[in-house]
Amino acid sequence: MARIGIIGSEGRMGQALAQAIAEAGHEASGGVDQGGNVANLAEASDVLVDFTAPVALEANLHAAVGAGIPILVGTTGLEERHHAAIDSAALAVPVLQTGNTSLGVTLLAHLVREAAGKLGPEWDIEIVEMHHRMKVDAPSGTALLLGEAAAAAREVDLAGHSERARDGHTGSRGSGAIGFASLRGGTVAGDHSVILAGEHERITLSHSAEDRSIFARGAVRGALWLIGREPGRYTMPQVLGL
Amino acid sequence: MARIGIIGSEGRMGQALAQAIAEAGHEASGGVDQGGNVANLAEASDVLVDFTAPVALEANLHAAVGAGIPILVGTTGLEERHHAAIDSAALAVPVLQTGNTSLGVTLLAHLVREAAGKLGPEWDIEIVEMHHRMKVDAPSGTALLLGEAAAAAREVDLAGHSERARDGHTGSRGSGAIGFASLRGGTVAGDHSVILAGEHERITLSHSAEDRSIFARGAVRGALWLIGREPGRYTMPQVLGL
Amino acid sequence: MARIGIIGSEGRMGQALAQAIAEAGHEASGGVDQGGNVANLAEASDVLVDFTAPVALEANLHAAVGAGIPILVGTTGLEERHHAAIDSAALAVPVLQTGNTSLGVTLLAHLVREAAGKLGPEWDIEIVEMHHRMKVDAPSGTALLLGEAAAAAREVDLAGHSERARDGHTGSRGSGAIGFASLRGGTVAGDHSVILAGEHERITLSHSAEDRSIFARGAVRGALWLIGREPGRYTMPQVLGL
Amino acid sequence: MARIGIIGSEGRMGQALAQAIAEAGHEASGGVDQGGNVANLAEASDVLVDFTAPVALEANLHAAVGAGIPILVGTTGLEERHHAAIDSAALAVPVLQTGNTSLGVTLLAHLVREAAGKLGPEWDIEIVEMHHRMKVDAPSGTALLLGEAAAAAREVDLAGHSERARDGHTGSRGSGAIGFASLRGGTVAGDHSVILAGEHERITLSHSAEDRSIFARGAVRGALWLIGREPGRYTMPQVLGL
Repeated sequence: MARIGIIGSEGRMGQALAQAIAEAGHEASGGVDQGGNVANLAEASDVLVDFTAPVALEANLHAAVGAGIPILVGTTGLEERHHAAIDSAALAVPVLQTGNTSLGVTLLAHLVREAAGKLGPEWDIEIVEMHHRMKVDAPSGTALLLGEAAAAAREVDLAGHSERARDGHTGSRGSGAIGFASLRGGTVAGDHSVILAGEHERITLSHSAEDRSIFARGAVRGALWLIGREPGRYTMPQVLGL
Repeated sequence: MARIGIIGSEGRMGQALAQAIAEAGHEASGGVDQGGNVANLAEASDVLVDFTAPVALEANLHAAVGAGIPILVGTTGLEERHHAAIDSAALAVPVLQTGNTSLGVTLLAHLVREAAGKLGPEWDIEIVEMHHRMKVDAPSGTALLLGEAAAAAREVDLAGHSERARDGHTGSRGSGAIGFASLRGGTVAGDHSVILAGEHERITLSHSAEDRSIFARGAVRGALWLIGREPGRYTMPQVLGL
Repeated sequence: MARIGIIGSEGRMGQALAQAIAEAGHEASGGVDQGGNVANLAEASDVLVDFTAPVALEANLHAAVGAGIPILVGTTGLEERHHAAIDSAALAVPVLQTGNTSLGVTLLAHLVREAAGKLGPEWDIEIVEMHHRMKVDAPSGTALLLGEAAAAAREVDLAGHSERARDGHTGSRGSGAIGFASLRGGTVAGDHSVILAGEHERITLSHSAEDRSIFARGAVRGALWLIGREPGRYTMPQVLGL
Repeated sequence: MARIGIIGSEGRMGQALAQAIAEAGHEASGGVDQGGNVANLAEASDVLVDFTAPVALEANLHAAVGAGIPILVGTTGLEERHHAAIDSAALAVPVLQTGNTSLGVTLLAHLVREAAGKLGPEWDIEIVEMHHRMKVDAPSGTALLLGEAAAAAREVDLAGHSERARDGHTGSRGSGAIGFASLRGGTVAGDHSVILAGEHERITLSHSAEDRSIFARGAVRGALWLIGREPGRYTMPQVLGL
């Protein structure tokens, strides 16, 4: 039974983490919020999980290093100096930084890379996602992550090969293009499909999230995986052995 | 056994019509092409089917009226004066004019109208279509036809309620909007889905064409339905009893 | 602002109803559980909602009649004598009895009836559903309800036209058959698709539930719709104006 | 430009092969049918393709060995002695034997193996396929092939872990089971989906065939790939570099 320290325990993600930890049969070692003492939390934990804000990152990394325990960083909006701080902490303890902790999305990105690499550019790639009506940007970050996986497999630059927002007289599809389309409606937590369309056959690789609890569940799986590792910087695909 | 006269029998659609007529157990009464005598064809037929060009429309209508038989007009790109000619011919013989002869699409549009009308504008409507990589415009004509069905059911103007080509910082979804997204790839003959997304539930109404033969098959069904009707102007929904 | 009396307020459905009532901007007029006084609840309510057990049904109907208010009955497992009691109560107050309060499923059944009736038996109908891994029976009650809608539209008996559990050497598909397939896995709240497969085209009508809150939400909508109606027995389709 | 010898050139598959060879810019080196001289065909070819019958297999292998050219064997219904003959021929020339030449299905099986292996048995696997109304057996051979890929990844025996034909009171889903469901209708060429359902998320991996030409196209790709290889027995996954 591992003791998992939740930094930012009162937010929506913090509460989801506490539930996922309990479901997995482990112990949430007492969270801290704004002004709490992260160093104390670290001393009582086997691993830390941080889904807070970039401004708190350095103190959190410092607490992990001080206690000699791993830390999973799911905070988004990181800049170059935050990555430098992570690299530095990773010399002393295991650090997993990621923008998406879902196991399913992590696997899907791997499968997209496999498929795009093996089938060749004569198979057209389209990525379509649907999210709830309140989402304010398009395409979703996960759709772009899947596009990056496809582009990497084909050794091309995503920005230079994207077709976004087709409307009106578009002309025929660009050879080697990666298309994106975004649907919005209702309360959809997040659906993503990557279509590879060849001559008279199609492969579709999809992920569907029923709710946002999958991010907490994947984070707990990642945190547990970190315990006992060598210092270093890790990624979600490694958690799945990819 | 009906005798169905194909105007423009050597084109791709003409050949598809000949096959659909044979499959349905009827007789293609001998087609005519450019320069052929439509009046002679009309005399030997129980109904005419015209998938040619607007320029030939008036002569074709004239032949139908002359022989006193119905005519199905599937020609696209019609202008106001063509519609006036159709209205005029419809005083003398039954005329069915339509831009889409697929039975499945015709029914789907009806179901979309039902669903959009009954569920109310708090259900968000999204329309997504996929076609082969050579298609040069977006959204497809059928997607727009489905959007018109939804807008009509809600008694709003489609143009004023469409969200097309979401990309970048879009802000949250417009209340009452009808969204469109277009996918392109491979050799897809035509897939359309209309999604109605409510609070924690979604209805999806889809049509998938395996190939373009469905347009010929629906045209034959429409042509047979016209035989023996009163003079007048008819639509595909009427063929299905909608 | 309506006062909705929840009978059985402490169960999972009772709690979901309380939340749905609050979200809709109305008032849960104080629930009762085993041993509670339903008559008192009825006096303080504009409508009752009953998702309890058949054994409690008669007392609940009696309370509604006594207070002269409508009642929605979502209790399952009703037998002939329960229906007789409902018919009797419906002489005095409006009663809506249903096995499925989801608006989406109610509409889907209507669309299936339309489609099956208009397309004719040469279009093959298949119904496929997916539910979570703990579900112990197959097909789901909703799948059978959708099958009944299709059979009714074709004026055939469902039991005599079902193909269930294809496995091994099945022979070719029966003409006019309605097929059923059941998938189980994960935590899926409930997905249903009705496929109508014709010559080279397919229509698919689907409903997807993100969670079980949709049943509470639909029940609230039904309960509100009942207020002010004439005495009589009503159904969910009427709530949607179908 | 390669010369591809089609054995059995007048059958439906032979004609599809001739078209696929032409589309790929290569030469069909003159096919032979029953009673034709396979040895002569082999002398005029760079590779042979055999989609005939088991009874002809040995003569065809013999011709390939005699001419010192590779052979792709897509014939089904092979027994142990046929496989022994293939093994023997593979000592002298490259031989690719497969029951499914579709590139898309070959890739899908690979992706299923990856997904099933990485996600672990707490993700439930369901395989659903749809084929035209004339298909007489269920599940399809391809569905079983996909099930074998999943079972192999989990190092279990498929037969001992299958759930087929759920109907009635089934009880909850078996842990580690692989479920199968078969839909039949219309003219569907072949759709397959493998669903991996976890806690509140789902991955779906699908293949859709628009028509049966994909088998000819994949066979041509396999035949071209064989030219110039070392003698030995090869498989479709190797053609894709899997």
